[in-house]
Amino acid sequence: MVKVIIIGSGNVSQHLIAALQKSQNNGNEIELVQVYSRKKETLAHLLDYKKIVTDYAELQEADLYIIAVTDDAITKVSDQLQFKNRLVVHTSGSVSLDNLNNNNRKGVFYPLQTFTKNKEVDFKTIPICLESENATDYQLLDKVAKSISEKVYTINSEQRKALHVAAVFVNNFTNHLYHLGNEICKEHQVPFAILQPLIKETAQKIMTLSPEEAQTGPAIRNDKQTIEAHQLFLTNSNQSNIYKILTQSIQDNGKKL
Amino acid sequence: MVKVIIIGSGNVSQHLIAALQKSQNNGNEIELVQVYSRKKETLAHLLDYKKIVTDYAELQEADLYIIAVTDDAITKVSDQLQFKNRLVVHTSGSVSLDNLNNNNRKGVFYPLQTFTKNKEVDFKTIPICLESENATDYQLLDKVAKSISEKVYTINSEQRKALHVAAVFVNNFTNHLYHLGNEICKEHQVPFAILQPLIKETAQKIMTLSPEEAQTGPAIRNDKQTIEAHQLFLTNSNQSNIYKILTQSIQDNGKKL
Repeated sequence: MVKVIIIGSGNVSQHLIAALQKSQNNGNEIELVQVYSRKKETLAHLLDYKKIVTDYAELQEADLYIIAVTDDAITKVSDQLQFKNRLVVHTSGSVSLDNLNNNNRKGVFYPLQTFTKNKEVDFKTIPICLESENATDYQLLDKVAKSISEKVYTINSEQRKALHVAAVFVNNFTNHLYHLGNEICKEHQVPFAILQPLIKETAQKIMTLSPEEAQTGPAIRNDKQTIEAHQLFLTNSNQSNIYKILTQSIQDNGKKL
Repeated sequence: MVKVIIIGSGNVSQHLIAALQKSQNNGNEIELVQVYSRKKETLAHLLDYKKIVTDYAELQEADLYIIAVTDDAITKVSDQLQFKNRLVVHTSGSVSLDNLNNNNRKGVFYPLQTFTKNKEVDFKTIPICLESENATDYQLLDKVAKSISEKVYTINSEQRKALHVAAVFVNNFTNHLYHLGNEICKEHQVPFAILQPLIKETAQKIMTLSPEEAQTGPAIRNDKQTIEAHQLFLTNSNQSNIYKILTQSIQDNGKKL
């Protein structure tokens, strides 16, 4: 039985709690022993009250401590742990292994997904990126990860940084393009819902085609007339600036192919 | 029975042919009478040879002629039609009604989706945007559109322009962000497949949340440390430039909320 303790009560923590409990109920040799939260109420809907602790001193012995807190709190939390030589990991895409206190063995347990509170996710399909300092710890992380997800990857710190930046492009920036599309629709009294099937299909295409194969539109066709008409149409300088720069980037990339 | 003729043999035309034939087989009062194609072979897998014509003079009388060709060929094609006062529409998001020849009654039948050859689409879920010069023609377009799709919208030329530009943002530009994410992954030997569930979820979120509600990441949190680390990490000037501009745009927009 692998004893796991989670520290934190935010989005990632709550989704992990649910996933680990499900894993345990499904007969996997995983036991969620305790969760640390500043307030017990935050997790009352997920967990037995007596499993929630609000004082680091109450933390029991476990095989794995998962720190699931905001990036800038990770070091402070790991400094406050009152034990030594146990396996302590964080869940961040952008924080180095070195930010964890040297008192304990270090690792990373990074689920690459965008979590929204109250929106259930199927953890089985979420890639979990693992890193550790030694092979024994890796095996333990691998066992826990595979008990909740079908997609477990070995990713070192440098690769994890790349993944995190790439995730900003395909998630945060993409969502901002949805926002700009919505803004243009609003300005011209067009329901944004008309664009939803297109948004879905754009993401769907990438499951079977490379982004290069999937690229369509005036920029890659070098359809100057349409590009010019669009630029005339966009009177908002921010929209127009982003249109110009992304069009240029698509065309420069097209020339390299 | 509404008699329909399609002119063109590209992506949009082929998907329309399949959809109209399906509609006809399902008992709707729609009949695909003929399709014009420069070469019969292009459509041989879709259609009876005798329904394919290669000469405009062979076009029969019909209730609706749908010109599904590239944007810059629309005017030329509509000029070559050898009849008058019939209903002729095009399928483009960016071409004005005025680009159709005055000899016939004009309209637009714009299916807003990204079509890939050999990749089947469910036409039922594809929004079709309609425009016409008079109410009777509109009713006919509406009947045909509703026989193949559940999502039919009345969209005037100005709104259609806005939609087309917005579609470039949420489709072409989004796909280019996938490309940049892929590029970053390749540069650091990370499989792009790790990002696919995130891409899917990013699109999925927008079906129930507004882009503003769905926005996450270092830019909207104004997490300066992470933004700085990402900018140091990106040595490719194009990637770094796009990172900076989209981060700025997210933050400027955040301030407006």
